Amino acid sequence: MDEAIKEAIKAAKKDEVPIGAVVVVDGKIISRGRNCREKSKNAIKHAEIVAIEKACKKLKSWRLENAEIYVTLEPCPMCAGAIANARIKKLVYACPEKTSNDGLCEKILKSTRLNHKVEIEEEPNELASTLLKDFFKKKRR
Amino acid sequence: MDEAIKEAIKAAKKDEVPIGAVVVVDGKIISRGRNCREKSKNAIKHAEIVAIEKACKKLKSWRLENAEIYVTLEPCPMCAGAIANARIKKLVYACPEKTSNDGLCEKILKSTRLNHKVEIEEEPNELASTLLKDFFKKKRR
Repeated sequence: MDEAIKEAIKAAKKDEVPIGAVVVVDGKIISRGRNCREKSKNAIKHAEIVAIEKACKKLKSWRLENAEIYVTLEPCPMCAGAIANARIKKLVYACPEKTSNDGLCEKILKSTRLNHKVEIEEEPNELASTLLKDFFKKKRR
Repeated sequence: MDEAIKEAIKAAKKDEVPIGAVVVVDGKIISRGRNCREKSKNAIKHAEIVAIEKACKKLKSWRLENAEIYVTLEPCPMCAGAIANARIKKLVYACPEKTSNDGLCEKILKSTRLNHKVEIEEEPNELASTLLKDFFKKKRR
């Protein structure tokens, strides 16, 4: 999670919402991503999507069956869907997404429509949360 | 929808699940996409994502507020989330997604977490449906 947070810090420095992600296989980081929606002017470029696309490229497969993804914030529906589509085994996130209060991330990852279910773990982290709070506090000013 | 179906036919010819999408602004098609998950070896490359990324590039913005998206199949959670994230105004799809029976597409697009809601319209189309049925029948053989 520390490595995902490093990505979030890099995003904050570029004035992007500070969210970072890493994909891990067999205990090794195979790809990293950070949110770059503003700079890329691309609605798809959330941290998880960037990391998943790089992981697919690295493994030359759209199936990331033995992979885990560490993200600093609970994924939005698009990213939760991407994690499910890529057959990722486990999601670990630092901060729960409070405004997305519909519980959609869990609904998507545990949906009966999937042949495989994605494990979900919350790993609270003060720094990941402070980064987000500070970013939005600064934006509101 | 006919133009989205043309994209689905192109996907089928490449042995990809035949799904196509077009993004429309002011009655004009601004981008097209077709599913290319196998060829690209990328879990993200569904028709809708490809079309949305091209539309963002064309309009130089991640906000596609006046856009409509036409898709040959009801979007999966990832693509529904992408449509919401891109602030697309309206989704029109040809075939309902029967195996994804959790109603997740509608839940995501009508979620209270969004400031804007995405309109949804079903526009049944025999050809879009036949393309999918024939593709999976051939695969099972």
